[in-house]
Amino acid sequence: MGKVYLVGAGPGAPDLLTVRAARLLERADIVLHDALVHPETLALASRARRIDVGKRYGKVSTEQRFIHRALVEAARAHETVVRLKGGDPMLFGRGQEEIEALREAGIEVEVVPGITAALAAAATLQVSLTRRGIARTVALLTPRVGRGESASQWVGAAVQADSAVLYMAAGASREIARSLVGAGKPAATPVALVESATLASQRRLFTTLGALTEADLPRAEGPVVMCVGEVFREPAALDSVLENPQIRTA
Amino acid sequence: MGKVYLVGAGPGAPDLLTVRAARLLERADIVLHDALVHPETLALASRARRIDVGKRYGKVSTEQRFIHRALVEAARAHETVVRLKGGDPMLFGRGQEEIEALREAGIEVEVVPGITAALAAAATLQVSLTRRGIARTVALLTPRVGRGESASQWVGAAVQADSAVLYMAAGASREIARSLVGAGKPAATPVALVESATLASQRRLFTTLGALTEADLPRAEGPVVMCVGEVFREPAALDSVLENPQIRTA
Repeated sequence: MGKVYLVGAGPGAPDLLTVRAARLLERADIVLHDALVHPETLALASRARRIDVGKRYGKVSTEQRFIHRALVEAARAHETVVRLKGGDPMLFGRGQEEIEALREAGIEVEVVPGITAALAAAATLQVSLTRRGIARTVALLTPRVGRGESASQWVGAAVQADSAVLYMAAGASREIARSLVGAGKPAATPVALVESATLASQRRLFTTLGALTEADLPRAEGPVVMCVGEVFREPAALDSVLENPQIRTA
Repeated sequence: MGKVYLVGAGPGAPDLLTVRAARLLERADIVLHDALVHPETLALASRARRIDVGKRYGKVSTEQRFIHRALVEAARAHETVVRLKGGDPMLFGRGQEEIEALREAGIEVEVVPGITAALAAAATLQVSLTRRGIARTVALLTPRVGRGESASQWVGAAVQADSAVLYMAAGASREIARSLVGAGKPAATPVALVESATLASQRRLFTTLGALTEADLPRAEGPVVMCVGEVFREPAALDSVLENPQIRTA
């Protein structure tokens, strides 16, 4: 019986995974990976069979059951199984369900953390999520709502925190901004949007909640995190490096 | 004029820093590092002069000014300067102040993210910080209060979030639990305490907020994160691997 490693691939750039993750990929027999993992990261697993089990938001839950079954079968046939997930495996994924499916099958599991998009965005913006006298609390959340869920389930945490980073914000920035302003966050609150953080295709945009409530942003090509809070006031030093100024709101 | 890399060393274990960080350390001319960075991580910087600029909570701010001066001087004398910080450089540190001091001196800065303690704790606990139907919002915060600050500045964010991870919680778990219960968090809320996450000396403890309000825990030897929320209900599968069962609360 093999062992399954739930491994975070990090935010995108292939050298932003951990040394531990890189070594595990190099000795893996089989890798079951998400859709958005960088090809160079997958290439580290040179001796492994590689299976794309990626799925996008909104697909039916039978697909998750398929992943569970595939993981159990992989562990029965191989010594070292890597389940490679974008970002960190213990944040905004189905990691817990995968761990439980493996435990129920009596299979040993180990989790290797990864750089999550909020920290990648902060690094590329050169903006600290916390700052003495300005921000001491950070909220990480996803504003996507499934059936029977509403903004009331996340907006309180986003409003209470000094800095909030909203994952999976692509195409939803206007709706998110309206929810936050509606819940009492000042319209003047600075916002930074980061698309495809750490990749060559990365784009960054500094704006405010108020501007976003009216803005019609171009369609995003990659994952977007929306960073909200006083610390995200546009730093003068970044003016010259903002990519794609045409996506700046009026 | 050299360039300064603000680099996250990760949570403790030397193989939990990123590949990018490892490569930068290998080619660094000089490394200014925090106190808690693992010796094996520092050893990667084999050709660099290594300077411990570590400081503990509560020291006076002149020390931070000393770090700024040392960074600027290092960048004037060397090509590749690494400022190596525990965890992630953009969370609960003085990263922003260091970036601004360098910018003011006209020195180029790049930030390399690191695995933060909350994700390391989640990995070692094998507990996802978010979970469908249970937790969609996560708060990261430090409960330490400086002069003129009070619990009211962090307790709201911790209560509103489904999962909260409190950094620098060593020696403060009773006070934190009392603040959270006083602010309306149910006493039955599960808590996991993780000390020295990812190191050999790591200790984990599952309990509840209510039990912690009365518990007198032994003194911690390393950094402690306190994880609060429904997702941290003790998983049956971890019963057998809890280290140091004597620190379990009654």
